[in-house]
Amino acid sequence: MSAAPIFERLALIGVGLIGSSIARAARAEGAVRSIVATARSGVTRRRVAELGLADQVVETNAAAVEGADLVIVCVPVGACGAVAAEIGPHLKPGATVSDVGSVKGSIIKDMGPHIPAGIHFVPAHPVAGTEHSGPDAGFAELFVNRWCLLTPPEGANSQAVERLAAFWRALGANIETMSAEHHDLVLAITSHLPHLIAYSIVGTADDLQTVTRSEVMKFSAGGFRDFTRIAASDPTMWRDVFLHNKDAVLEMLGRFNEDVSALARAIRWGDGDTLFNMFTRTRAIRRGIVEIGQDSETPDFGRPHPALQHLPRPYAADGE
Amino acid sequence: MSAAPIFERLALIGVGLIGSSIARAARAEGAVRSIVATARSGVTRRRVAELGLADQVVETNAAAVEGADLVIVCVPVGACGAVAAEIGPHLKPGATVSDVGSVKGSIIKDMGPHIPAGIHFVPAHPVAGTEHSGPDAGFAELFVNRWCLLTPPEGANSQAVERLAAFWRALGANIETMSAEHHDLVLAITSHLPHLIAYSIVGTADDLQTVTRSEVMKFSAGGFRDFTRIAASDPTMWRDVFLHNKDAVLEMLGRFNEDVSALARAIRWGDGDTLFNMFTRTRAIRRGIVEIGQDSETPDFGRPHPALQHLPRPYAADGE
Repeated sequence: MSAAPIFERLALIGVGLIGSSIARAARAEGAVRSIVATARSGVTRRRVAELGLADQVVETNAAAVEGADLVIVCVPVGACGAVAAEIGPHLKPGATVSDVGSVKGSIIKDMGPHIPAGIHFVPAHPVAGTEHSGPDAGFAELFVNRWCLLTPPEGANSQAVERLAAFWRALGANIETMSAEHHDLVLAITSHLPHLIAYSIVGTADDLQTVTRSEVMKFSAGGFRDFTRIAASDPTMWRDVFLHNKDAVLEMLGRFNEDVSALARAIRWGDGDTLFNMFTRTRAIRRGIVEIGQDSETPDFGRPHPALQHLPRPYAADGE
Repeated sequence: MSAAPIFERLALIGVGLIGSSIARAARAEGAVRSIVATARSGVTRRRVAELGLADQVVETNAAAVEGADLVIVCVPVGACGAVAAEIGPHLKPGATVSDVGSVKGSIIKDMGPHIPAGIHFVPAHPVAGTEHSGPDAGFAELFVNRWCLLTPPEGANSQAVERLAAFWRALGANIETMSAEHHDLVLAITSHLPHLIAYSIVGTADDLQTVTRSEVMKFSAGGFRDFTRIAASDPTMWRDVFLHNKDAVLEMLGRFNEDVSALARAIRWGDGDTLFNMFTRTRAIRRGIVEIGQDSETPDFGRPHPALQHLPRPYAADGE
């Protein structure tokens, strides 16, 4: 903590789950000397001030970036272009501008043109989150042992890229650098398609008339509840993700549909071997994810299990 | 614990995750006076004896049920009919025979004809589990605050049904009684379809050539990893579930496919309102599941987050 900060002044535009986790972690690690924050809604700005997440809370994006060495835009992907247009003229020469969006191609297309020469534009995506939203939902450990993907445009200043990487490493993240195009393909399968499917199946269940909502909820421990967590994610963020990574998402969805059809066909024709082979193969991926520390090895994700309680016994063995 | 046992002698046929959890919980709660267990493989039988899960471990199903007041068949759904044929002639008059299968219509069809008159046949399904299998995977608290669904065939003895319910309540479960047909429809959406989809998407990801398996695993925290847990479930069990609940699973899959297509269409045509409305609606179900205690309210299921570590700082604010 006595180490010198990596950036002097951090400006956060948008302080939801991710923005507020950055603020908490950056402060806990002394990764910046001061934090200025802003948010579109007055309610959020007041809450950020109450929580003491920033040294200064300001009303406009333009005011936030004045004098900042690192600007991180933490708003839904669809709003990033407009923010870039607003802050462009007010950025400090030599500053770094980054974001946290789950799509990178469209960020570069939408933000890039508004970033003046002499400013380092290094898009980033910390692959971390929970199903909760807003400034209260964040916590300093969110990024620890998660990956932050950097997608610097061609010709980006390598020192600026490395400095942003150092910032994220200070927050506990591992760094990988890749092209925006590859990023969007990788995330389409590891994040966007899972969300699309989870949102779909929860909707399907809710529409059923033969099975009540109460039954769906009560008996969800059979598997369904795992899908509801990600289907509870922020609707605005996810609307934007799908609209901005359309091609990769539809491509992955097409492949998924083919695979579902093959399984459905095996079920219809009673082809147990195909099912068994498929279900055996998928175990290896799970094992790998646990081995590299990207998930909990405790059963059921380590969900708490209430203790057994000793109940009165209306029926006893010799009572019948 | 000083309460009298509900059954004198429990016979467990099959001692995997569910069977071994029943043994542990029944003993912890004194729900039975003694437990006899058997398993098809000698390796499992030896392990059950080593773990001390039963008072007696025997080699055959016929030997296991001799003198037992409650027989619970804990083997994959596809094997239940053959087990019933084996044990039928050896059951003690007045005994109760039950199971734990995730499909109930086929259990009644396959086991029912082998259960002699004077024996109570009460199929059951505890909606609980983890991704782990085998006698070591079980734990006594698995059924606490989960639901155990009873699907007694028409004309079942109501006292026998209530006694089995009392047994499951002693293990911590809540009880609901329904027809086998309705059970299979409810579970198709709350459990079978989620597993089918999870197995599919993990397979889809593994087949990609543009995204490596290592990338899929590293960046799985974006949503994918939640699917891998249930896609790591026991392959034999799940093969049998799909083959034995074919009609309900294919019906639910058809509805799901329609809903996925509608979302895909909204993405293709840039219809953000449809996406937003869909993603808002699904939050309510998650809230309901947490409210009734069927999932953890802690973010990310309460997965452990490693602490921040203070790292050396190669780049400092004034170092550039």
